[in-house]
Amino acid sequence: MTDPVTAEQAAAGTRSAGAATPAEHRAMARARALGWSALGSTSPNPAVGAVVLDAAGAVVGEGATRPPGGPHAEVVALQQAGARARGGTAVVTLEPCNHTGRTGPCTEALLAAGVARVVVAVPEPTGLAGGGAERLRAAGVDVVVGVERADAEDGALAPWLLGLHEQRPQVVWKVAATLDGRVAAADGTSRWITGPVARAAVHRLRATCDAVLVGSGTVLADDPQLTVRDDAGADLPHQPLRVVLDRRGRVPAGARVRDAAAPTHLSAAADPAALLAELWDRDVRRVLLEGGPTLAAAFLAAGLVDEVVLHLAPQLLGAGPALVGGLGITTMADALQLQTLDVTPLGRDVQVRYRPTRHTGGAPRPEETTN
Amino acid sequence: MTDPVTAEQAAAGTRSAGAATPAEHRAMARARALGWSALGSTSPNPAVGAVVLDAAGAVVGEGATRPPGGPHAEVVALQQAGARARGGTAVVTLEPCNHTGRTGPCTEALLAAGVARVVVAVPEPTGLAGGGAERLRAAGVDVVVGVERADAEDGALAPWLLGLHEQRPQVVWKVAATLDGRVAAADGTSRWITGPVARAAVHRLRATCDAVLVGSGTVLADDPQLTVRDDAGADLPHQPLRVVLDRRGRVPAGARVRDAAAPTHLSAAADPAALLAELWDRDVRRVLLEGGPTLAAAFLAAGLVDEVVLHLAPQLLGAGPALVGGLGITTMADALQLQTLDVTPLGRDVQVRYRPTRHTGGAPRPEETTN
Ligand SMILES: NC(=O)c1ccc[n+]([C@@H]2O[C@H](COP(=O)([O-])OP(=O)(O)OC[C@H]3O[C@@H](n4cnc5c(N)ncnc54)[C@H](OP(=O)(O)O)[C@@H]3O)[C@@H](O)[C@H]2O)c1
Ligand SMILES: NC(=O)c1ccc[n+]([C@@H]2O[C@H](COP(=O)([O-])OP(=O)(O)OC[C@H]3O[C@@H](n4cnc5c(N)ncnc54)[C@H](OP(=O)(O)O)[C@@H]3O)[C@@H](O)[C@H]2O)c1
Repeated sequence: MTDPVTAEQAAAGTRSAGAATPAEHRAMARARALGWSALGSTSPNPAVGAVVLDAAGAVVGEGATRPPGGPHAEVVALQQAGARARGGTAVVTLEPCNHTGRTGPCTEALLAAGVARVVVAVPEPTGLAGGGAERLRAAGVDVVVGVERADAEDGALAPWLLGLHEQRPQVVWKVAATLDGRVAAADGTSRWITGPVARAAVHRLRATCDAVLVGSGTVLADDPQLTVRDDAGADLPHQPLRVVLDRRGRVPAGARVRDAAAPTHLSAAADPAALLAELWDRDVRRVLLEGGPTLAAAFLAAGLVDEVVLHLAPQLLGAGPALVGGLGITTMADALQLQTLDVTPLGRDVQVRYRPTRHTGGAPRPEETTN
Repeated sequence: MTDPVTAEQAAAGTRSAGAATPAEHRAMARARALGWSALGSTSPNPAVGAVVLDAAGAVVGEGATRPPGGPHAEVVALQQAGARARGGTAVVTLEPCNHTGRTGPCTEALLAAGVARVVVAVPEPTGLAGGGAERLRAAGVDVVVGVERADAEDGALAPWLLGLHEQRPQVVWKVAATLDGRVAAADGTSRWITGPVARAAVHRLRATCDAVLVGSGTVLADDPQLTVRDDAGADLPHQPLRVVLDRRGRVPAGARVRDAAAPTHLSAAADPAALLAELWDRDVRRVLLEGGPTLAAAFLAAGLVDEVVLHLAPQLLGAGPALVGGLGITTMADALQLQTLDVTPLGRDVQVRYRPTRHTGGAPRPEETTN
């Protein structure tokens, strides 16, 4: 399948991100979704998605990164496509690797399959695996890089890209609150703030994470199991690491978070950054922070929250712990600023996703952020 | 314009709400919007909208209720239509009146104009003005009642309908909060929680109300002017009554709410119900409650909030007054329940509208709800 625009641009010596065909754009959206479906099971590797189109532009293979040691997304998609990949196009969210790690280089698999064209969203940012596009072009393959790049970067690749730059896991803070910002009633009860649709969404969110984190306060108050369960309440086969920040060893022996349903890490890390370093060393690249207001405040004050997922319940309490503990902010001008990413109705509740854009303006006061 | 379904049903002796034509449904949506545009200027009369279609189904007249003493919506629309109304259809949100109040009966105006058909959303619920449909049918006009009735009842007619049943004004509680449910910072500053788009929406909302209400606490903290201003900041010609609940006479002489820009009522009413009775007697049928957490709690605890308009700002404070004061609720099971009506992005903020469905489960404790 030839793309006249690309051919023209190639003649002019340029390769533009706008050069993808409508079929390739559709394939790229599907590749992003495939990458997303693998998120939570690929770390420390990126969750990549790939779609192979035959020479006529029909989808003949789909793949996502398999768990570490397994094949990369392109290889899975090429295996599915078989001989139909010849003369076709591989559409992939991340530039194919050109190095031999635990698996062979994807560039060689693409060349062996005989694809004529490779469409990439995000260029490989590491020197190690880089050079994939170059290697393919040298072998005569038409390569376009940068197609819907921002969407891919904000999607399943985000934790891995953040890790490259900051050497720490991505932190997503999920919180369920009443519309007056309470996460529990005055007597400590918090079941249920949100309805079944929102709670099911939390399980799907957990499944995209390598670890689920709470403080000892949440374990003592709610005794949550913190596993990923399906709609029938059964544990899914792949479970994120359960992490409790418990500096004083207050988590009881019989706590459900200690059961055999999933691995658990009880940490005595002194602060959020130290905990994230511990988790990084365990190959965790995406953490769901589901703790109470104390831990949320500690992470926010440290500038270590990358995304906020608020589940806003249509209830009012008028009393009870607020969504976040003290941040040392006393005046409006110093408020922590966020950007609204999207709003999604979840049954009777509403989900709003945010990205913090300015961390605490006032200096965090330690006594307020630790309890 | 004859509607075969209606003709059939008329032959069978039934008149169904489903009998409106597509052009009539479009006209009804427009009539609702016209009614909404008049809301805030018609009380104690209902804010009705009307559209006149000619015999071919084209719009030839539009109208909304004029301020008390002025013509009703149908009459305004008929005046605009002139001779083109003959043989046409009047589409109106409320059944035309059949009594002579300050204006003549609308039924006579419709008959004089020679309309062949009248399509109505909400049947007239009062004995006083009722009988309009009957009078029209007796004169040979084809009348359909109940078309998109629920939409009209939830729209601009809601305050008037509520008033008929409860003899009190409708109360809409508008509140701007950070995502942790704070309405001000610890030092009392609250400018600005929301951005310019949300603040402009508040002015449009105020314009639909007969009165805007705060407690003395808000006047002392923020000294708001509480007028309806356009995007350039200029006061609009029609201003709702400004009401301050100020039992201890704390509102200073120089408070902006006392300026000449709009009428002001300082009330010493003992409780929300007493205040609403005072306002009812001043022909107020829709009140925007813009007070702080103390007054909001008092109205919620009394079961006197009909709608909540939450403007949720993408900011976190970690401290400061919460959206609502104590409601006497100590446990999750007693939380005040609401129904989410709709979610609307407003610039960087998000508006969520709610309707309380179950008032305080726990008995409100007076000491918690009054300060
Ligand atoms: N609605 C929701 O989404 C939601 C979610 C979770 C919890 N909750 C509610 O929140 C309440 C519990 O709140 P919480 O604030 O006590 O729970 P938390 O934030 O999960 O746990 C707080 C504890 O974490 C420990 N911790 C360890 N390292 C810390 C650090 N660097 N900074 C701060 N704390 C650290 C502290 O105990 P040590 O000093 O012993 O380490 C602290 O007391 C319960 O009512 C629960 O129902 C609601
Ligand atoms: N973000 C927002 O949307 C928003 C809106 C408004 C206010 N605020 C913030 O809220 C804070 C002010 O809160 P507030 O609670 O003091 O304001 P408020 O609720 O507007 O006023 C409270 C006062 O109303 C009076 N009141 C009269 N009748 C009452 C009754 N039946 N029950 C209870 N109170 C009655 C009381 O004073 P008397 O006893 O003297 O009558 C009481 O102190 C300020 O920081 C302001 O910035 C925010």
